[in-house]
Amino acid sequence: MREVAIIGIGQTPVDEHWDKSLRELAGEAVLAAMSDAGRDRAEGLFVGNMLSGVTSKQENLGALIADWVGLLGVEAVKVEAACGSGAAAVRAAIIAVSSNEMDCAIAVGIEKMTEGIMVETTSALASAADADFEADQGLSFVAINALVMRRYLHVYKWKHTDFANFSINAHANAIHNPFARLHEPITVDEYNKARMIAAPINLLDASPIGDGAAAIVIVPTEHLRVLSQPIITIAGSASATDTLAVHSRKDPLWLSAAEKSAKKAYSQAQVKPEDIDIFELHDAFSIMSALSLEACGFVDRGQGPRLAIENEISPVGRIPITTLGGLKARGHPVGATGVYQIVEVAVQLRGKAGETQVPDAHIGMAQNIGGSGATIITHILKSKQ
Amino acid sequence: MREVAIIGIGQTPVDEHWDKSLRELAGEAVLAAMSDAGRDRAEGLFVGNMLSGVTSKQENLGALIADWVGLLGVEAVKVEAACGSGAAAVRAAIIAVSSNEMDCAIAVGIEKMTEGIMVETTSALASAADADFEADQGLSFVAINALVMRRYLHVYKWKHTDFANFSINAHANAIHNPFARLHEPITVDEYNKARMIAAPINLLDASPIGDGAAAIVIVPTEHLRVLSQPIITIAGSASATDTLAVHSRKDPLWLSAAEKSAKKAYSQAQVKPEDIDIFELHDAFSIMSALSLEACGFVDRGQGPRLAIENEISPVGRIPITTLGGLKARGHPVGATGVYQIVEVAVQLRGKAGETQVPDAHIGMAQNIGGSGATIITHILKSKQ
Repeated sequence: MREVAIIGIGQTPVDEHWDKSLRELAGEAVLAAMSDAGRDRAEGLFVGNMLSGVTSKQENLGALIADWVGLLGVEAVKVEAACGSGAAAVRAAIIAVSSNEMDCAIAVGIEKMTEGIMVETTSALASAADADFEADQGLSFVAINALVMRRYLHVYKWKHTDFANFSINAHANAIHNPFARLHEPITVDEYNKARMIAAPINLLDASPIGDGAAAIVIVPTEHLRVLSQPIITIAGSASATDTLAVHSRKDPLWLSAAEKSAKKAYSQAQVKPEDIDIFELHDAFSIMSALSLEACGFVDRGQGPRLAIENEISPVGRIPITTLGGLKARGHPVGATGVYQIVEVAVQLRGKAGETQVPDAHIGMAQNIGGSGATIITHILKSKQ
Repeated sequence: MREVAIIGIGQTPVDEHWDKSLRELAGEAVLAAMSDAGRDRAEGLFVGNMLSGVTSKQENLGALIADWVGLLGVEAVKVEAACGSGAAAVRAAIIAVSSNEMDCAIAVGIEKMTEGIMVETTSALASAADADFEADQGLSFVAINALVMRRYLHVYKWKHTDFANFSINAHANAIHNPFARLHEPITVDEYNKARMIAAPINLLDASPIGDGAAAIVIVPTEHLRVLSQPIITIAGSASATDTLAVHSRKDPLWLSAAEKSAKKAYSQAQVKPEDIDIFELHDAFSIMSALSLEACGFVDRGQGPRLAIENEISPVGRIPITTLGGLKARGHPVGATGVYQIVEVAVQLRGKAGETQVPDAHIGMAQNIGGSGATIITHILKSKQ
């Protein structure tokens, strides 16, 4: 298999885009990525999306978006892994190019969530969990994560406020990101007093839904000559799964699929956790930040909140996370999120992250999660000057 | 890229499976395929499904089914291309193995459609078409195909009854297939007098929905030693798209994505249409049989019905189609159909098709369509003794 690189990135702001249809929103990101790459053709389009069948009564997004962006006729499909759909589409595009199946592929993540009424969206999001054994018991997706957080607080003896800096850091980093949904800083006091959603998860533990699209253009590295900016190569790409229902796991506080996919990606990229300069993790809820950092080897089991408390997660910390806002403040348009994460790592590796640029960033990791830890996809990117 | 082969196949009857959940039905097909292959492990699972988010309120089928069939932890995702989802999942599995990304992958197509009330299913199926410019105008999926058939009758001067043998042949072939949904032969008279659904498409032009699952196991051919039955290799695999809305096409009576993907598959397999011994085509409606035969080069443009009238489509005809019932009589559980087609071609190439066995079948083609010709995926299989 040949090495591949990201030569173009594009994204729309995460927002309520009531004035744009599904294809218009996706098209905006794809065309931006193609323009950034200086290409007007591609041989394949892989669409990451979770909810369009429910929220827009539209499936078959591959053909829909390919036609819209001027790629009529190319191979195009949708890839779905709940909130992990974005990275799943990226991975499909990577395999298609690295296998010689095609020489240029585009991955786009797209989700439009704000047009439905809230109860529909909450119900639709529950389809990421086990419909027969979780959702049917009345558990919404946030409720499942609340059970996990409650158990974590009990087992490892942390207080809820110990998670505050995960959200504070994300909000602080989003302020200067024009593509982020939220641009307001928050304080510990605000975090502690935020409205309860599903105890112990409050409003400032939870990422906001939104409409958005992000896209990347992938080609073989061997086709690239010297460019004006660093080449961003895919050094690692791996996917693993766990039980869909959290109660079926031996340890509901351990993301075994995160550990498995991260270890495989580390091995492919020949790096260790301490080599990672940025980690765009899947902070759908603050508890997930702690669990992800632990499973990927950045901190001992049960010690995730320590990194937040000691502020090792800021852009100048030991392991910078959510450097452009993360799911918490950039926003979480579910099927698009995994592509946003990879776009943001690429922005950092290009040195274009502005106020929240991580100094000397050469190796970045993005990890996208579908369901409460059921499908976890890890990518490691490296910059080559 | 290395050549890959199908070493295991499995399927459930297409029926109303109210007593089986989504995972149980999919599991039945996957476990049958693994048993047929003599394997109890695989490295990846690719799920073809269109409607589970709407009909079962369940997404994230990759992780769900992987766990259920004893493949906890493996890479697993859903691939969607409307009614072409099954072949899209097969193609993802083929690329994953042929690229050396993994050594054994399973593709499973699964759809449960009969639990919803009919209006929901019709509405859900409309998401295969263009939601903004077709479905929003009140066009159901059958109505779109009816417009195509009406225009075909007008332009090429055929009568509705000229399509009768597409349905009669499919029903006749399904009688001995234990996995088929319908086992009743039909007559020309019954065809002509069948209840109208969306003129000129009547009940016997249209394939029935159903619940069902089919699966295949894929490995590199180089890993195979001499087996007790012929090795079925993937000689061609290609996917192409067209506009989602039929009215956007220069010629609404020409399946350009079928032509494109078939030509690419012919070239990969180094065969011509006259070399194909069986063609499992996508006869969701009888008009689609005619259009597919034309676009793939088996008959001149506008002459599709001639093959039916002259009965060149029977198991002993020039180009046998729907040899085990096709979508019309085996049934059309949409996201599963593409895998059923490939399983059936494999059954024929193994010489195990019983009463409808095509004599001396060595090269078979399967073509799966998502939307009214929007996403078309063609596979060519060869048997090697």
